[in-house]
Amino acid sequence: MPLRLPVYHPPDFTRPDLATAPLAVFEAVAQDGVAPESYHATSIFPEYLHVAPGKWQLLEESRMDCVVRRGADERLEVVEFRRLRRGDQVALGRHEDGRDGIYVHDDGFRLAAQPQEKFAFRTLTTRESSFSFDYDELYALLAHERQAGFVLWVLGPALAFDRDARQAFARLVRAGYVHGLLAGNALPTHDLEAALHGTALGQEIYRKQPVAQGHYKHLDTLNQLRALGSIERAVARGLVREGIVHALVEKHIPYVFAGSIRDDGPLPEVIADVYAAQDAMRALARRATTVVCLATQLHTIATGNMTPSYRVLPDGSLRPVYFYSVDMSEFAAQKLINRGSLSTRAILTNVQDFVVTLERGLRG
Amino acid sequence: MPLRLPVYHPPDFTRPDLATAPLAVFEAVAQDGVAPESYHATSIFPEYLHVAPGKWQLLEESRMDCVVRRGADERLEVVEFRRLRRGDQVALGRHEDGRDGIYVHDDGFRLAAQPQEKFAFRTLTTRESSFSFDYDELYALLAHERQAGFVLWVLGPALAFDRDARQAFARLVRAGYVHGLLAGNALPTHDLEAALHGTALGQEIYRKQPVAQGHYKHLDTLNQLRALGSIERAVARGLVREGIVHALVEKHIPYVFAGSIRDDGPLPEVIADVYAAQDAMRALARRATTVVCLATQLHTIATGNMTPSYRVLPDGSLRPVYFYSVDMSEFAAQKLINRGSLSTRAILTNVQDFVVTLERGLRG
Amino acid sequence: MPLRLPVYHPPDFTRPDLATAPLAVFEAVAQDGVAPESYHATSIFPEYLHVAPGKWQLLEESRMDCVVRRGADERLEVVEFRRLRRGDQVALGRHEDGRDGIYVHDDGFRLAAQPQEKFAFRTLTTRESSFSFDYDELYALLAHERQAGFVLWVLGPALAFDRDARQAFARLVRAGYVHGLLAGNALPTHDLEAALHGTALGQEIYRKQPVAQGHYKHLDTLNQLRALGSIERAVARGLVREGIVHALVEKHIPYVFAGSIRDDGPLPEVIADVYAAQDAMRALARRATTVVCLATQLHTIATGNMTPSYRVLPDGSLRPVYFYSVDMSEFAAQKLINRGSLSTRAILTNVQDFVVTLERGLRG
Amino acid sequence: MPLRLPVYHPPDFTRPDLATAPLAVFEAVAQDGVAPESYHATSIFPEYLHVAPGKWQLLEESRMDCVVRRGADERLEVVEFRRLRRGDQVALGRHEDGRDGIYVHDDGFRLAAQPQEKFAFRTLTTRESSFSFDYDELYALLAHERQAGFVLWVLGPALAFDRDARQAFARLVRAGYVHGLLAGNALPTHDLEAALHGTALGQEIYRKQPVAQGHYKHLDTLNQLRALGSIERAVARGLVREGIVHALVEKHIPYVFAGSIRDDGPLPEVIADVYAAQDAMRALARRATTVVCLATQLHTIATGNMTPSYRVLPDGSLRPVYFYSVDMSEFAAQKLINRGSLSTRAILTNVQDFVVTLERGLRG
Repeated sequence: MPLRLPVYHPPDFTRPDLATAPLAVFEAVAQDGVAPESYHATSIFPEYLHVAPGKWQLLEESRMDCVVRRGADERLEVVEFRRLRRGDQVALGRHEDGRDGIYVHDDGFRLAAQPQEKFAFRTLTTRESSFSFDYDELYALLAHERQAGFVLWVLGPALAFDRDARQAFARLVRAGYVHGLLAGNALPTHDLEAALHGTALGQEIYRKQPVAQGHYKHLDTLNQLRALGSIERAVARGLVREGIVHALVEKHIPYVFAGSIRDDGPLPEVIADVYAAQDAMRALARRATTVVCLATQLHTIATGNMTPSYRVLPDGSLRPVYFYSVDMSEFAAQKLINRGSLSTRAILTNVQDFVVTLERGLRG
Repeated sequence: MPLRLPVYHPPDFTRPDLATAPLAVFEAVAQDGVAPESYHATSIFPEYLHVAPGKWQLLEESRMDCVVRRGADERLEVVEFRRLRRGDQVALGRHEDGRDGIYVHDDGFRLAAQPQEKFAFRTLTTRESSFSFDYDELYALLAHERQAGFVLWVLGPALAFDRDARQAFARLVRAGYVHGLLAGNALPTHDLEAALHGTALGQEIYRKQPVAQGHYKHLDTLNQLRALGSIERAVARGLVREGIVHALVEKHIPYVFAGSIRDDGPLPEVIADVYAAQDAMRALARRATTVVCLATQLHTIATGNMTPSYRVLPDGSLRPVYFYSVDMSEFAAQKLINRGSLSTRAILTNVQDFVVTLERGLRG
Repeated sequence: MPLRLPVYHPPDFTRPDLATAPLAVFEAVAQDGVAPESYHATSIFPEYLHVAPGKWQLLEESRMDCVVRRGADERLEVVEFRRLRRGDQVALGRHEDGRDGIYVHDDGFRLAAQPQEKFAFRTLTTRESSFSFDYDELYALLAHERQAGFVLWVLGPALAFDRDARQAFARLVRAGYVHGLLAGNALPTHDLEAALHGTALGQEIYRKQPVAQGHYKHLDTLNQLRALGSIERAVARGLVREGIVHALVEKHIPYVFAGSIRDDGPLPEVIADVYAAQDAMRALARRATTVVCLATQLHTIATGNMTPSYRVLPDGSLRPVYFYSVDMSEFAAQKLINRGSLSTRAILTNVQDFVVTLERGLRG
Repeated sequence: MPLRLPVYHPPDFTRPDLATAPLAVFEAVAQDGVAPESYHATSIFPEYLHVAPGKWQLLEESRMDCVVRRGADERLEVVEFRRLRRGDQVALGRHEDGRDGIYVHDDGFRLAAQPQEKFAFRTLTTRESSFSFDYDELYALLAHERQAGFVLWVLGPALAFDRDARQAFARLVRAGYVHGLLAGNALPTHDLEAALHGTALGQEIYRKQPVAQGHYKHLDTLNQLRALGSIERAVARGLVREGIVHALVEKHIPYVFAGSIRDDGPLPEVIADVYAAQDAMRALARRATTVVCLATQLHTIATGNMTPSYRVLPDGSLRPVYFYSVDMSEFAAQKLINRGSLSTRAILTNVQDFVVTLERGLRG
């Protein structure tokens, strides 16, 4: 099943209501980090601003809950509130239908609505949904993205706790299916703990036997890495010879490890300031054409917040950004949907099995 | 907030498409327990059959996934497939819009559809939904039903494991808020274990200390009850002096205890044949105007299967049947919605707290 | 990793406290289905009764929460309370340590206790436990059991909802890894729905598109099967050509489908009386050397109730019975442990992935 | 039931193995933020260092996974690895039993071990555990702590989404049961959204109706607060007149809002650097005698990491620190236990009901 990306259908701006729509209005920021009262907030969908009579300009890099800033060069930029500076010109307007000079285009990819009957079963995705199709779709999608896209992975620590899952993910990295990675402190810490000590939170990673003084293992790992000063040095010196982080370093895959209040250590690479971490994550998210989030509610929501539903390709055409969330609970999967990320595809399973199955499937 | 029941708006059968609709067609059953191939299956909504020119007859006691049988007296009856007998006349037709002489009326109570925006938050009910309004609605609803309705409770065993919850439910019974009860073998067994031994599955019910030979307590309970021959006798003899079952017996509230393959014992009252149990449950469900299901996936789905979304009152008017499912997991709550029971209201919480809070709220 | 079954170490009955223990005492049943007040209840462990001076007799087929009946031929039989008849001789005594002439031997297989530190991580099995070892152990175990054991599978309906999982399980059947199967009405119904209509609860089983009048598909399936009179006939006539049930019939694997109150239909083979169903399930459970339960709390608990932790082989030696519970939630997995089935191994994942991964692994 | 705090029993250092134990050994830090290789890591339990012959010094403010630093004044201080500076003297040793001059005292409060039978039910806490006793214990505990302790609350955002729960918590604050509060950006944001706009994530907070342009409500809240510059100003100006944050400000209760990568805004008070946030949180945690965590895995684990199981009172005596985790899933509750926080008490329920029930119970 080779992938066929859906075609984007731009809005018809000759439609009477749009043809007669006013121009978008901008107002200057009066105080750093604060938008004018009637600011327009962006969504995950392609949005167009009526910038000159008959000229609707697409926001090229949008995302949820940001504002639109017009630069000196008339370029439109989507920015977080916290990045606004006094004097910045910010778009106003809260209607999505053009009457404020702003049009939100939520069905550009014509994802076919499903026929509705008065009485229907199985309208929600749960653990009992069938996922064979999703796996096959992912095989086709990732085969395509390996050549032509940018696959961003968002990982919770669970993946590092299982031997097979670690190995499978490292193989995905080496096979070219991983172009960027977002995680916290725990994922690399426990992956490195496995590489250095063969344990995960003090438990022998394969046989699950507790080892003597096991609760020292992740602390020793952190202490060793902090002494070395960087993960790259640990790899270069041959101390870390396998695992997820090792594969990333070896293949020069960019990663961002964002700090959180539950961190021990942390590892040298972890970013302590969460908004600096957001910026670093966003630098990868803006390149993503597919995002796969594995068992991390915090990082999944954070990444969902900064990832639009589309991407503008170099030739100016638009393609969808695929967003997968793999988790064990309906609550986690639906949390994102309840935040407006309607295009998220949820797969309900243990990420250990997910990664092992996916990697085998991609090998054919 | 006194309750205002929504008004029922019957279909307009003078509408051209309905006015010109054919009569409903019936076919004789050829084999016991088997419907004719094109049988019509019922839903939870009010359905009308075109039985004579211009005469659309409402199915008075419908429910999901049954068939419509026309009796010798022309009465229409909704029956399970397994109850069909050779020669029975069964309605045919699979369209809901009148073209088969059958009309499914899914918005008779005009439950206002909510306005849709292109980008919206919180479309699903989860543990993070607000439930204050649901409680207030329940207080008003149950105050109404105590006088004018029939509240059917469907209980999993969890309620019997907690002292306060048991007492709160017994108070609900004595205060007149419980008109029927459905459960399995475990709920009455552990409630009686608490009454006889002060334990729940061998754990002291209040302090949660394991008692000596605690795993005998529910077996002793079952053995004692089996020796006595009935729960009523245990109450009459003063052996059982408090608890859920005690309150039911004392107030002459009808109950059905349906057997399952995980039963020990069972108690004398438990119905071993699950289809006989369905019939007994249905005898209560057909009277229900409100159903409240607490922490039992099996019994909740079973009851959902046999409960329509409306009830015909003695004066011929229709009112909605309220159906609540209280559970800890989104999966359980949504299982019912995924089976087509769209009118279910889910409350995500521990049923212990739910019952305690509800009972306090009803006391005012 | 070839399997090495742990060796059984019988109790040392020359130990002073056991050597001087009294004989086990029996009392006659006074009322059908009711045990004498001081009855002894069995556990999942090997138990020995002191039946003659120095002679401790093993209960050969025990299970949880039953009583011990001595037959006319002096044979000891473990029976459910409901099977007791007036005059039956039932063992008395509630101590496990020999002082009542009964000895419960809970560490016969010397499953090494793990070293305890004052401060330790990861003492509970959760979704974040590593399962690679469990898979490898299962590969070795099932390879052994295929030749020398009896693998009993206990299935919830989820498995029938996914194309790959259905196919994987059917392959397991054909490859000889399935010797018996326990389920309810839903698993075979939806498996047959897939075989006959290509849907699962009305949703196209692979692409997950709702089909027109999808909610008729499982009803049509039930009606068709009821018309035919048996699943075997549907297979024999070539109507059912693939799937789980098809493989079972083709390979003559015994199965029990137990009825429940949530059943539609039911299928002709479903047993309506739950205690008759228990007996039929027990007839398979008593042969089991490994039990694998997939996503069904009801059937898992029921099977756990009737499965001891050991089996006596034809040569008189004892081997452990392996019991796996695969589910998505810690609550479900732990429910069994909380009922005393301490030897259960829990694997937390979606059973779709579990079966696909397991089947691939067994192919090597 | 008035509270009786358990008495602390210090170790008996005249015991031969302890009397002859060596002195604790210290080593100088060679590199900032890195401990010497054989560092001793602390636990949640009271620990004693053998600092001079016969003199065992208690660590007065310990917590998990930190190291022990000896100051110039010979004082022992427990510090995070990241706070170590070159030249600091750090305690070495990995045995807990005195042989390294370090003694970990894990049963000082003699929390009675429960009797073990070979076959026992209900050893794990789940949603089906009884919680009446826990509530009663909490009523007694909080009544005591209101006068004599320091109750630290750790809140996820869920509490702000429900009218009754918000009001109940605000009443707890005003009644003196809240002495400190830890949360992220979401809790105060949605609480302020409710106060300013009557919504929670764009949904009318009581009736749960979506309001027009609801997804602007939390952004407007953040923007307004950022314009004002502080929460206190919003309260002082009368813009915020009710709710959780309002009560905190009014009663001068200290709070820490820690940033995370999923933040919008953030509010002015939110700490961007997570390790600075840890320090601020720790400043409250070190005063805590009871910690209650509500529906936040991230903050619960973070707080668990920094809270020992005991506190040294001004008179030098020790009392236990009570730690409660209230959540909907066994996974969340057990996550903490799996990280070694064995003294955590889990209550499985929706925090909305928990807070409403608790507040009513404390009113008596």
